This record gives sequence, structure tokens and C-alpha cells, in this order.
Amino acid sequence: MLLSILYVVGITAEAMTGALSAGRQKMDWFGVMLVASATAIGGGTVRDILLGHYPLTWVANPQYLAITCLAGLLTTGIAHWVIKLKGVFIRLDAIGLVAFSIIGTKVAMNMGLHPGICMVSALVTGVFGGLLRDLICRQTPLVLHKELYASVAFGASGLYLALLEMNISELTATIITLIAGYLLRMSAVRFGWRLPAFQLETEGPLH
Amino acid sequence: MLLSILYVVGITAEAMTGALSAGRQKMDWFGVMLVASATAIGGGTVRDILLGHYPLTWVANPQYLAITCLAGLLTTGIAHWVIKLKGVFIRLDAIGLVAFSIIGTKVAMNMGLHPGICMVSALVTGVFGGLLRDLICRQTPLVLHKELYASVAFGASGLYLALLEMNISELTATIITLIAGYLLRMSAVRFGWRLPAFQLETEGPLH
Amino acid sequence: MLLSILYVVGITAEAMTGALSAGRQKMDWFGVMLVASATAIGGGTVRDILLGHYPLTWVANPQYLAITCLAGLLTTGIAHWVIKLKGVFIRLDAIGLVAFSIIGTKVAMNMGLHPGICMVSALVTGVFGGLLRDLICRQTPLVLHKELYASVAFGASGLYLALLEMNISELTATIITLIAGYLLRMSAVRFGWRLPAFQLETEGPLH
Repeated sequence: MLLSILYVVGITAEAMTGALSAGRQKMDWFGVMLVASATAIGGGTVRDILLGHYPLTWVANPQYLAITCLAGLLTTGIAHWVIKLKGVFIRLDAIGLVAFSIIGTKVAMNMGLHPGICMVSALVTGVFGGLLRDLICRQTPLVLHKELYASVAFGASGLYLALLEMNISELTATIITLIAGYLLRMSAVRFGWRLPAFQLETEGPLH
Repeated sequence: MLLSILYVVGITAEAMTGALSAGRQKMDWFGVMLVASATAIGGGTVRDILLGHYPLTWVANPQYLAITCLAGLLTTGIAHWVIKLKGVFIRLDAIGLVAFSIIGTKVAMNMGLHPGICMVSALVTGVFGGLLRDLICRQTPLVLHKELYASVAFGASGLYLALLEMNISELTATIITLIAGYLLRMSAVRFGWRLPAFQLETEGPLH
Repeated sequence: MLLSILYVVGITAEAMTGALSAGRQKMDWFGVMLVASATAIGGGTVRDILLGHYPLTWVANPQYLAITCLAGLLTTGIAHWVIKLKGVFIRLDAIGLVAFSIIGTKVAMNMGLHPGICMVSALVTGVFGGLLRDLICRQTPLVLHKELYASVAFGASGLYLALLEMNISELTATIITLIAGYLLRMSAVRFGWRLPAFQLETEGPLH
């Protein structure tokens, strides 16, 4: 229930930021809805395809797709307002990221998969929406360069699994993971924490 | 039967225009066959993967894949002839778009899915081939900028569903949808009808 | 058994060359692991999704994913050494390509699919990892331009199928295919053999 609410908050916020990317590419309304939906529910879609977890969430529950399309279209009218509220959206994005990670972990757990795959499932759920957005908008995938993002998804999933392993109730584990993941993500944004980068100057492809 | 013929016409025309895109990127014959096939049958493939509708059409019927590969290779020899017949190909593409939409609608209907998802299924079938082509050829996805295209797929699907709902026979519904969709698409090309665009000048990514 | 060893050799080598591409894009460690894994096991993943062959290899055997992630991270420390050993990696890549092709062929065969689809399955297994790497790193897909690569995968698969058809034992067929495919690939690299290219100068998109 808590996760369902946070999921809807998360996909709405993600859809709105996705729509902004579409606007920077001067896309039409269809493009806006496509990029908004890919950003918001693309991660869960890629996860379900990789795990063979059918039907996809939005195929079984078309209302989620309707929400992301409407949120995207709405953004075309209130874009400057959305941009001004940047700080709010960074917070909503952090909450969504952790909620998506917990949901991704649970999907893989319920399929009886290896804990390592549960954490990969969380990571894909949290990260691949933004990756798809950047692929469609032909931008350098931000998630591969910027502050801790994938790491938060991965770490939140590991924490959640560890808490359940300690026989802590699902609700408590969810709340602890949400708080810890949110704080980690917001600290990473504030202090610019990032993973080390691998920079290779040598020219010439190996292949 | 009518749909099967139009399907073959559609994938052949799509494969030939896909091959032209590959030629502009100076790809080799393998690239030509890949882009031709992705353009022609990529939309149906993405649809089937999203819906979990296995086996894929071209896996069960490899002759369709053979047709798109051959049509692509053939195009390398008659490219200038194809370019001169641009008007014919725009018409064939319009017919293919509507045929693909009806097929996509029927696939989702036969799986017992929500009418909204049936329309999304039509849209994915009609639009994602061109999207894949532009991703592989590293071009700005035309379908997100140009005249009504996705809208025609979506509208044709809605019309088809509405006609069936009125207990009109499948054949009649198919023919009416084909004519209406074709006229809408060709009018959009002629008069430059397009969806409103969302243009955002502000710099700086939100993420 | 032979194939399993060659598979591990292949994904390790592919992951290391993938990591170099990530380094040229100045990605962080997560990006390095993502690109390394996509390069190494992306082809098999796309194949399994297209064929509906679940669970995916790395979901059922997470150790393969661990290998590609570790190989990618390791490469960040020994990149200049990897680059110096370019000749070794070209050989390992050739072995991996043929091993991947045989594995792809067998997966499709075991599903009872048409021989043509078995060869496409080999091609997807061998080629799509590099295609994904170039898409994520926003580079022109090399495989669509360079020396015989897709053709080696396709030809190796055809040879393997033909040998089995002649009632040659699986082990013998595997060894013959490995040697023939390796020699063809290395000859293509040495002598610059490539498929004819399709070059189209005319401007203006058809769509």
C-alpha cells in the first residue's frame, strides 16, 4: 500500500522530468508521452522482460500508462513551473528511485531468484528508465556519469534483503530502506559524491 | 487474407526505405539487411516482447524475415529507382501503417487485453520499426517530430475497435479502417498536419 | 564442456574490450560494469528475449554476470596492458565469436526452430553485444561497417548445422566449426575482407 502510493508519486515525477527532456528536443505530443512513459515505467518494463515476468505492470494495469502520458502532457503546459520546483523534483526522484528499487527486489524475490539477481533487478528498475530517456533523446546517458544513482538502487536493495534476512517485518524493512536510501541519494546530490570514473585517453578502437 | 497480403506489401516497402537509411550511413550488406528488417518487422517484434506474445511472427514464419532481407539487398541495386518512386512508397507506407495497426490491435484483442492496451499495441506495431531504424542509424527519430504518424496508428486502432463494438463484421471493419486511416495519413502528408510540438529553450538538465 | 570453457573465455575478453569503450566515454564504475556486461552477455540476452527462451542464462547463472562485472572493473586498472595485448584480444574475440555462434545455434535447435532461425540466433548471439556497446557509448556501430563479423557468425552456424546433418558427432562438429570460423575471422582481419558497402549520396529522407 505504502509502496503503491510511492510508486504512483515516483512515476508521475519521473514522467514530468522525462517530458522536459522531450521538450528540449522539440518533440511533438506523441514524443512527449513516449519519453515520459519510457522514463517512468521503462525501468520496470526492461526488468520484467529480462526476468520473463509477464504480464508487464502497465499491460495489466493500463492506468499507470495513462498517468505517465497525462503527466507528460500536463508538463508541456506547466514546464516553467516544473523547472522552478527543481528541488522538489530531485526529492521526489530520490523517493521514486528507492521505491522502484524495493519493488524490483520484491519482483525478483517472488520469482525465487538469487539475491544477487534481486539486486540487479532493483538496479534495472531504478536506472533503466533514465537510460532509455537519454537513448531516445540522443543525450549522453547521465546515469553513467553523475552522482551516486545506480549505487543507491543497488545498496537500497541489499539493505532491504539484509533486513528481511534478519526477520524484520516487510513494512519496517521498507520504511528503513526508504529513509536510508533517500538520505544516501540526497547526500550524494548535495556533496557531489560519485563513483570513480574510468578515463581512457588512448585513441583507436580495439575492435 | 486481405491483411496478410497488405502485411507483406507493408514489410517489403518498409524494408526498402530502411535500406536507404542504411545506405546513407554507408553500411555493409549485413547492416542493410539488419536495418531493413528492423524497420519492417521491428515494430511487431517490440509489440510481441512487450505483450509476452511468443513465438514472434518471424520466428514462427521465417519467410517474412527472408522477404525483408531480400528486399533490403535488392534496394542496394535499385536505390535511385526507389528514390524516384518516392510518391509510391509514401502511399505503400501509409497502407502498411494502417495494416500494421489493425494487426497489432488484433494481437492484443486475442490476448484479452484492455482496449487501451490494444490501441497501444497498434501504435507500437506501426511506429517502433521506424524508431529502431533511426536509433541504429543514429538519426533523430523522425516519428517524434513529423506529420501525424503515431496518431494515425492510434486513431485507426480506435476506429477498428469501435466498429467491431458496433457488431460490424471483421472484414468490413478492416476495409473501413484501411480507407479512413489511409486518407488521414495522406492528408497529413499533403497538408503538413502535425501534433503540436513542445519546445523548451531553458538549458540545464533537471537530473 | 569445451563450449562452457570457451564461453567463459569469450565473455571475459568481450567484457574487457567493452570496458575500454566505457573508459573512452569517461564513464564511472557502474557504467564500466554495464557496458562490459552488455558487450559480453548482451547478445545472448537479446537472443533469449527474441526466442522467448527463459530464464536468461545470467539470471539462472548469476556467476556469469559477476565475471563480466569483475572483468570490466579489473580492466580499469590494467587498461594500458590490455591495449598493448590488442593482438591477443583480437584472437580471443574471434574464438568467442565462434563459440557464441555455436551456442546460439544450439539454443534455437533445442527449441525445435527452423534452421534459418538457428543461424539468425547464432548471428544475434555473436553480434548484438557489440551493437549494444556502441549504442550505449553513442558510437557508430562498428559491426555494420567493418571486416566480416556477422558473416562469420552466420557462416559458422551454417557449417555447424551442415556437419550435424551429416551425422558427425557434436564434439567433432564443434571443433571443426571453431577452427574454420576462427581462420575465416582472422583472415578477414588480416586481409581486410569485408562485405560490399551500400553507399547512398542522395540527400533527403524518404520518410
